[in-house]
Amino acid sequence: MKLYTYWRSSCSWRVRIALNLKGLDYELHPVHLVKDGGEQHSQWYREINPQAQLPTLELADGTHLTQSMAIMQYLDKVHPDVALLPTEPLLYAKALQLAEVINAGIQPLQNLSVLQSLNRQDPSKELSMSWARGVIQKGLENLESLVKGSTTQFLLTETPTIAECCLIPQLYNARRFGCDLSKVPKLLEVEQACEKLDAFQQAHPSVQPDAQ
Amino acid sequence: MKLYTYWRSSCSWRVRIALNLKGLDYELHPVHLVKDGGEQHSQWYREINPQAQLPTLELADGTHLTQSMAIMQYLDKVHPDVALLPTEPLLYAKALQLAEVINAGIQPLQNLSVLQSLNRQDPSKELSMSWARGVIQKGLENLESLVKGSTTQFLLTETPTIAECCLIPQLYNARRFGCDLSKVPKLLEVEQACEKLDAFQQAHPSVQPDAQ
Repeated sequence: MKLYTYWRSSCSWRVRIALNLKGLDYELHPVHLVKDGGEQHSQWYREINPQAQLPTLELADGTHLTQSMAIMQYLDKVHPDVALLPTEPLLYAKALQLAEVINAGIQPLQNLSVLQSLNRQDPSKELSMSWARGVIQKGLENLESLVKGSTTQFLLTETPTIAECCLIPQLYNARRFGCDLSKVPKLLEVEQACEKLDAFQQAHPSVQPDAQ
Repeated sequence: MKLYTYWRSSCSWRVRIALNLKGLDYELHPVHLVKDGGEQHSQWYREINPQAQLPTLELADGTHLTQSMAIMQYLDKVHPDVALLPTEPLLYAKALQLAEVINAGIQPLQNLSVLQSLNRQDPSKELSMSWARGVIQKGLENLESLVKGSTTQFLLTETPTIAECCLIPQLYNARRFGCDLSKVPKLLEVEQACEKLDAFQQAHPSVQPDAQ
């Protein structure tokens, strides 16, 4: 498998964690999101992914899958060892719920294309920075309120799920935009537990071949 | 089960379609998103859903599930008849991918709270209207390019999936914001096929008890 990725793309990072947790081999193909107006807008990449977003997973037969949630759930279906989703229905639902609070509730509102649009309104970038800080802060506090009181090592269980694949990159972005993480103590505890695992360490932006 | 809903909330609408397709009984509990600053922000509703968003599904034991994608996938797991997700892994992935193009790629960028934020920048609402029109138009054209050439009656198969649950409400919003739907002919074909089905007819905003 080949993963089209960018070191600091949070959705690519989610899939790197998922592939690593499952111990799957994959080749990285970096796509530079910023240089020369963004390689994701190039014709060759738009043929692979018309949304011009990362990541895209290329399967052995050449099929291209996009959307990190769909890719991670596909991997869970065809490589069920080291499950990203619990089998018990309510825990399964809760893991998806927590992941979607980030995937649909936070990340889209602070992704590069939204920030670039806001920068056209206010080239000083003050608007985009305060916008991103606000949506991430509020979203993470909502997430915290869904898991506070949980006594498990991770958000829901004693192993990481799809929710942690989404959480860790979102916390990194929270710091980039200056959020106050003292309000989300359970999320920080879970982050510490994740950071001890090789799968998370090897997926971190700083160790990617295209890191700058 | 009880569904906290609003007639014109597109994410509530998705879940109404899913419940109807599966023939499940549910009680509607309307939450007014607009009146008096929004009932979703009231204390009683935030205790149910700290994100202050719709929908929330209350299970028989009182558990509250939020996030429409998580709710629909939970329903598919515990009530597998009339499946919303194909069992074949690649079709399963593609159904989730198409749904996520809407769920993470379009809807969050045009939801009420984002438009209200933009209206604070430009109280004439011109900015929010053109913003919403732009993100929906671009998102639906991307979706069209993922399914063009498909010869099935629905987006992927001969029965509706989770992708159609997301598509139909998004097309309604596209019209509200004045998008040019002549660019997405396959999506319109699929919409026509959905409109013939009771499950979709009964989920439409216009027939909800709280419709105005």
